[in-house]
Amino acid sequence: MTLLQEKPLNIPQGRIDMTHGSGGRASARLIEQVFASVFDNPALAESNDQARLTLPEPGMRLAFSSDSFVIFPLFFPGGDIGSLAVHGTVNDVAMAGAKPLWLSAGFIIEEGFPLSDLDRIARSMAAAAHNCGVSIVTGDTKVVEKGKADGLYINTAGIGAFRAELDLSAKRVQAGDAILLSGPIGDHGIAILAHREKMSFAEPLLSDSAPLNGLVEHMLASGVDIHALRDPTRGGLATTLNEIAKTAEVGMRLEESAIPIRESVRGACELLGLDPLYIANEGRLIAFCPQAQADKLLQAMRAHDKGSEAAIIGSVVPDARHWIEMRTPLGGSRIVDWLNGEPLPRIC
Amino acid sequence: MTLLQEKPLNIPQGRIDMTHGSGGRASARLIEQVFASVFDNPALAESNDQARLTLPEPGMRLAFSSDSFVIFPLFFPGGDIGSLAVHGTVNDVAMAGAKPLWLSAGFIIEEGFPLSDLDRIARSMAAAAHNCGVSIVTGDTKVVEKGKADGLYINTAGIGAFRAELDLSAKRVQAGDAILLSGPIGDHGIAILAHREKMSFAEPLLSDSAPLNGLVEHMLASGVDIHALRDPTRGGLATTLNEIAKTAEVGMRLEESAIPIRESVRGACELLGLDPLYIANEGRLIAFCPQAQADKLLQAMRAHDKGSEAAIIGSVVPDARHWIEMRTPLGGSRIVDWLNGEPLPRIC
Repeated sequence: MTLLQEKPLNIPQGRIDMTHGSGGRASARLIEQVFASVFDNPALAESNDQARLTLPEPGMRLAFSSDSFVIFPLFFPGGDIGSLAVHGTVNDVAMAGAKPLWLSAGFIIEEGFPLSDLDRIARSMAAAAHNCGVSIVTGDTKVVEKGKADGLYINTAGIGAFRAELDLSAKRVQAGDAILLSGPIGDHGIAILAHREKMSFAEPLLSDSAPLNGLVEHMLASGVDIHALRDPTRGGLATTLNEIAKTAEVGMRLEESAIPIRESVRGACELLGLDPLYIANEGRLIAFCPQAQADKLLQAMRAHDKGSEAAIIGSVVPDARHWIEMRTPLGGSRIVDWLNGEPLPRIC
Repeated sequence: MTLLQEKPLNIPQGRIDMTHGSGGRASARLIEQVFASVFDNPALAESNDQARLTLPEPGMRLAFSSDSFVIFPLFFPGGDIGSLAVHGTVNDVAMAGAKPLWLSAGFIIEEGFPLSDLDRIARSMAAAAHNCGVSIVTGDTKVVEKGKADGLYINTAGIGAFRAELDLSAKRVQAGDAILLSGPIGDHGIAILAHREKMSFAEPLLSDSAPLNGLVEHMLASGVDIHALRDPTRGGLATTLNEIAKTAEVGMRLEESAIPIRESVRGACELLGLDPLYIANEGRLIAFCPQAQADKLLQAMRAHDKGSEAAIIGSVVPDARHWIEMRTPLGGSRIVDWLNGEPLPRIC
């Protein structure tokens, strides 16, 4: 008989209490029965305080990213905090052109949180990780008193590997580049908002939360000299383009009519007084490549299911002010500023 | 004129509001003025959503670890949440015998949190990282509404590198190994508790929060065949030894009189009815090596300032029950179980 009795947790009815964050027997049980059992992989099974990992090939470079997820509510149309926490970090790693390999998962749980929800979220993370081809190899669980969190927050950090000759970075974006977008914008933010506000639409609105590493791999295989990739999450397409313009010290010119937006998202935005350019996406990417190769890259993107609605939305121009200007369908033009204020808190 | 005005934040009087978590202009300002300015390093300066990194030598393996820090209060005798978040992850990485290289930092901040405290914590993290020889290369900031967190939670994930021939892992611990401890136990947990309870002692109690990577490097240089290293944080020495016994499928025998404990910690524990074996440490490690090399390893540890009070505290024995037994000074013996319950919540 060992001292750590394998007493099963009551997952259907049980709740998290402070002992689950103690680092003692209750913590060990929670980790074994809720997390380790579904995240199962050799690095995790070694039961050390760190995962020990080997790169697929010596000499590869690493891409390393981290995101905390505080989305409310935890379950939403098209996903949940678990799958989102996997996709979000996988995508940030993939935007370096890297193959995402390993994730860490850190849970901050509010006392009283239902074990059944935690179990459902852990299974969703495991399924998402499997789907992305990554392993959750290390992690941590903390519990805070009732009223000191909002159910559950998750941090994921991710490591990917890429060949040293690859150089995808915002600073490589230059005048003459085309700007490509992989699909319609605003789905994630508007789906969350509509769900919170109990709005309903003829066409149901789903988050676009999805892994983009497969699409990126496919785009790299096209042989196009991609300068940079970025996923326009918080702050939306507008803010992401402004960030890149600032880093690359360029301006951009967009064609409003070329930017794909679903009718339901456009309608919801009009109703709510929101601009879809500022709404978060969780399964879209922006790509920059020389104008001359843009059609080739577009074809590659459209041939992949995560890029089937891709479009060329504008171009990079010299501009010391680093402005993003957008030509409207009526022939006018407006400046697309950084997001000001906070239209949709806790969207990711 | 660019659209991102470099308007300085009012750090002495300002407070975090929801816009700082929007991913827009206010987020960019916060990141630039509070975090990027003090974490300054080339990977971070590239302003991508991920850090792109090169291992010191091709063919090295990676150690990857993550921890969330929810300690209360944020500032305590001997440290703060910022330095603790760096030391905690650096130490978990170092316990693989790896050289810690890079950290991510994820901040979950409660609306209304003073910018001056955030600035102080960011500077403390930067100083701790510098002291450990690691760079904070990527990160994320989220803001949640007033009452949905307790000031600030920080997640750090860390990557270290080690030569492929090195194999420090709990499963290598075996009967015949000596158990070494790098210094007195209980300082961190008791310092936090005393501070919370406004207890005072003749000798002031400080957390032992400290980086252990220098000590580990020194121990590895001794040439001793170290089987495993582990830092006894949450759950204390007792729980950490039980975890290793379970993984390695062994038992352990401890000498109570050999375990270093400060008089002030012993006194506080007696007063509070706590057992120092279960109190968290943040700057101590346990090492396992063949008995025959234990004195050599002990000398190496004592020659380093982070191991000057090191001691041999017991040995590993065959035991199918995986029990930790401790011989008391009076000649009796008791079983040292896993931590049950939660004596000290939110200690890290």
